[in-house]
Amino acid sequence: MTAGQTVIAVHGGAGQLPRRQREYPGRKGVELGIAAAVRAGQQVLTKGGSAVRAVAAAVAVMEDNELFNAGRGAALCTDGTVELSASIMNGRTRAAGAMVGLKRTRNPVLAAVELMDHAHCLLFGSQGDAYAAAAGLEQVSSEYFHTKYRERQLQRQKKRGDSTALDHNDESAHGTVGAVALDRRGNLAAATSTGGLVNQLAGRVGDTPVIGAGTWADNRICAISATGKGDAFARVAFARRVADLIELTGADPQAAALAALREVEIVKGEGGCLVLTANGQLTMPFTSPQMVRGWAAGRDAPTVALWADESVVLD
Amino acid sequence: MTAGQTVIAVHGGAGQLPRRQREYPGRKGVELGIAAAVRAGQQVLTKGGSAVRAVAAAVAVMEDNELFNAGRGAALCTDGTVELSASIMNGRTRAAGAMVGLKRTRNPVLAAVELMDHAHCLLFGSQGDAYAAAAGLEQVSSEYFHTKYRERQLQRQKKRGDSTALDHNDESAHGTVGAVALDRRGNLAAATSTGGLVNQLAGRVGDTPVIGAGTWADNRICAISATGKGDAFARVAFARRVADLIELTGADPQAAALAALREVEIVKGEGGCLVLTANGQLTMPFTSPQMVRGWAAGRDAPTVALWADESVVLD
Repeated sequence: MTAGQTVIAVHGGAGQLPRRQREYPGRKGVELGIAAAVRAGQQVLTKGGSAVRAVAAAVAVMEDNELFNAGRGAALCTDGTVELSASIMNGRTRAAGAMVGLKRTRNPVLAAVELMDHAHCLLFGSQGDAYAAAAGLEQVSSEYFHTKYRERQLQRQKKRGDSTALDHNDESAHGTVGAVALDRRGNLAAATSTGGLVNQLAGRVGDTPVIGAGTWADNRICAISATGKGDAFARVAFARRVADLIELTGADPQAAALAALREVEIVKGEGGCLVLTANGQLTMPFTSPQMVRGWAAGRDAPTVALWADESVVLD
Repeated sequence: MTAGQTVIAVHGGAGQLPRRQREYPGRKGVELGIAAAVRAGQQVLTKGGSAVRAVAAAVAVMEDNELFNAGRGAALCTDGTVELSASIMNGRTRAAGAMVGLKRTRNPVLAAVELMDHAHCLLFGSQGDAYAAAAGLEQVSSEYFHTKYRERQLQRQKKRGDSTALDHNDESAHGTVGAVALDRRGNLAAATSTGGLVNQLAGRVGDTPVIGAGTWADNRICAISATGKGDAFARVAFARRVADLIELTGADPQAAALAALREVEIVKGEGGCLVLTANGQLTMPFTSPQMVRGWAAGRDAPTVALWADESVVLD
């Protein structure tokens, strides 16, 4: 990477779709959605904006896209409701904000941004929505978040025997979203947003809103956004572990992330993450069959990839 | 420590009370409460019970004691409500459970125990209470948790200008509670429970229910329960950091905990923690003026300490 070169990377979730289904009908839409999120972050960065603003912009674009499991189009809880969680961390100040179980705020990641520089780190439930509303963030009806696709998916999941599933075990909708960025001044940030697991118990929270599990950023080490079976990532305190392995053992980011993913496997989870270092090194390992992701350095066209061994540049 | 020797340690919160007030009227009650919690854990351990059962028993005793900020006698949110959070982790299996914002479950730590071995790691709000009720745990009215003392404390805090405070900045009630234990088979566990900050925004969550922030246990490294300005501990992913410093750098537990407490200070927090290793080494450092704590090995009488440089054995 060139000094002062900006980098943005996003993910649209770890999932189960096998590679043999790679020509599935919804693929193009997802690739375009990922590319749009990369461009939203890139636009902030190339104008000299901060890494925090870039990851928030990229995540908000995916929250607004019903193909992803965050904001509009989020996975439904077993009672048919939507519960949205998000977090963000500023690698320069190590300030962090997180929201759990929002039901009215259009962009949960922007609510996390509002909280970030205040005394509290995490708010849950209706008080989170109230905080976001008081900060002037757009509030919407619950119908805004609901999609026909997610309602059918919930019914299918219940027929399979009432267990939960990662948010895109099938081919028409994708997962938890997240972003990491490096800005011109060398600052890192990370953000993550989700609707949780398909058919989860209402009230269940995974790693996404947990600082040190789903999200981490520290200018001295790296920025991380994770996705996958969130209960397992939370039990491992995943993101802090990756950063500690890099900082304290000198492991390279890929080796550190894979070691932490092995710890997730021990507690019966799988998934992946984005890891971006302060010198612009980007790695995106995953143990699930796929992880939807995209990235761009400087003004480059976004590259998008869904499985391990292929990628496409979207001009 | 002798091989097979059991150890239990508990804390009743980090606080601001200066040592010159050491003869305050409520001191004896707090010392007796800490000793009772130590004995409850000790009773489990000396009968051959597990570290998980020991920390749950010790924490539940403090939840039932209105002198501590957990369960009955919890600090009040700015709207006058009680919101209870707790977490527990099993160092043998690295299973973990956490509850956020309970309002009806008498012993939040027991709700966390119920969740620990199930698919989900964390539940928030009324669904957490519903889960606990379905598991057969005692539900109580909100009046059960409220005490006259906490109501007066909230009014005083509001008069001071509406800011939050650590849960025992004055002398009559103490703080967040937690416990770590080592059982006969060499298994570690940790648990933490709190009502949060005095006059906090309802919906605010600190580090207590966050696995890797307020609570951590891993037989290979140590068990940790933290207390203090929870927003800062959450932003640092405190407990995972302490464990990583021990595991990855070979730091002794005291040095590791103090290094992590310095990171907490950088994000404007103070407090302390219990750290217990698998070979029975116990350290309890804190950066706040006091941390209420007690401990016992094997069948020893409990030792109780409130400030840094004094302790008393309670036969």
